[in-house]
Amino acid sequence: MKIVRYRSGDVIHYGIESEGVIERLAGDPFQSIERTGQADDLSSVHLLCPIERPRIFGVAYNYRQHTDETGKEQPTLPVLFMKPSTAACGNGDAIEYPSDGEIVHYEAELVAIVGKGGRHISPENALQHVLGYTCGNDISDRIIQRQESKFGCLLAGKGYDTFAPIGPAIITDIDPTNLDVILRQNGTVRQSGNTRDLVYPVADIVAYLSRFMTLLPGDVIMTGTPAGVGPIVPGDDLEVEIPGIGVLKNHVVPARH
Amino acid sequence: MKIVRYRSGDVIHYGIESEGVIERLAGDPFQSIERTGQADDLSSVHLLCPIERPRIFGVAYNYRQHTDETGKEQPTLPVLFMKPSTAACGNGDAIEYPSDGEIVHYEAELVAIVGKGGRHISPENALQHVLGYTCGNDISDRIIQRQESKFGCLLAGKGYDTFAPIGPAIITDIDPTNLDVILRQNGTVRQSGNTRDLVYPVADIVAYLSRFMTLLPGDVIMTGTPAGVGPIVPGDDLEVEIPGIGVLKNHVVPARH
Repeated sequence: MKIVRYRSGDVIHYGIESEGVIERLAGDPFQSIERTGQADDLSSVHLLCPIERPRIFGVAYNYRQHTDETGKEQPTLPVLFMKPSTAACGNGDAIEYPSDGEIVHYEAELVAIVGKGGRHISPENALQHVLGYTCGNDISDRIIQRQESKFGCLLAGKGYDTFAPIGPAIITDIDPTNLDVILRQNGTVRQSGNTRDLVYPVADIVAYLSRFMTLLPGDVIMTGTPAGVGPIVPGDDLEVEIPGIGVLKNHVVPARH
Repeated sequence: MKIVRYRSGDVIHYGIESEGVIERLAGDPFQSIERTGQADDLSSVHLLCPIERPRIFGVAYNYRQHTDETGKEQPTLPVLFMKPSTAACGNGDAIEYPSDGEIVHYEAELVAIVGKGGRHISPENALQHVLGYTCGNDISDRIIQRQESKFGCLLAGKGYDTFAPIGPAIITDIDPTNLDVILRQNGTVRQSGNTRDLVYPVADIVAYLSRFMTLLPGDVIMTGTPAGVGPIVPGDDLEVEIPGIGVLKNHVVPARH
């Protein structure tokens, strides 16, 4: 099932898309899927970030080859951070390049969307708490990130408005343990990983998060990026493709301020 | 003005408290203060965390004497992190001590509550975007925090459910630049600072946050802790007092899991 969030006219809906037709849902899909019987044409609507202002949890250093390219040692626990909800944007939205940006990177990632919340979820039950999966791009200002990380913290470097493109749709029936994760910059492949190489796979991340905090429906988990990260500049076209899920496309523009 | 959020029977309201009487508000106080004319007796209601599931931003190393006691160098920029919304709790709520906790600390802090959101807010205008101030306790598991911080990230160590007591009330008419911040553990004073010693005062933090992200009404900013942090154990009674604002009281209990 392919779940989309979209604007039709002035109204925002969730829906289930198939072959260009969206079956409109009542409410959101987290508690239950309630069909309205109404349909919208995919070509006539504007797709949105699948979650409005989500809590976004990120996992750092979750592919060994990426950890190696950063020069860090391999972590011995899931290394987590948050991106603010206002960083979220959707397929087709512009990524705003900061006016004082110097080294800003793309990071293609598999994203898990929590369906059923909970606490103390076991790894064995964890995937039952995931509604589905989508693509994400964890845009990161490396200059600020390095300054913050020296003090063991991270927010501004990954927290700019538009620094968390997510989409285009939530795919519910897919195995997250063997998915290619590809990033193209202006048509050239820059990252090509596979989620089988995740140090902490989705089930382990969900279980670990829920050890200390209550997960909520709609929580977004960015699972980490494979090797090949690199700089972006205004004018770039970025695509995150996960075959079986879709392609997340975003253009980089200079920030207005 | 003293704004409280409270449960009366099964219903949650905001209200304005004065001399034991709460004037009930319609909706929340962020856009406007709309009085309903109804009143509740303070003694008959249960006070709640002033914001439901807020975005919580924290500032690390924001008092020089505290930075010194941690052995870190003084930062050259505001060092920020987030606590998840599910960490928030209110006055009188229990702080759950993790079952595998070894070194868990209190951190008394002045908390600013954003009223009017925005982006690119100047330090000169910043305090106009603050609805008011309250007390906070930034509970921190130092063992996990150190493990995460080695990799430049921070979430689990400060992210447990109940690790962000906030309250008891939002005080709107107070100067945040000269407030005593006191922590008592079982009646003994452990921290005694003053916000005049904040490296980055509230106006600077609001302005800095809004340089990269859109602030939203209800955002919570924990401004950093003064020197004197120390360990807690189940059974402890903790009080954060900021004269002119109030006293935030929480009891520490063992987590059920």
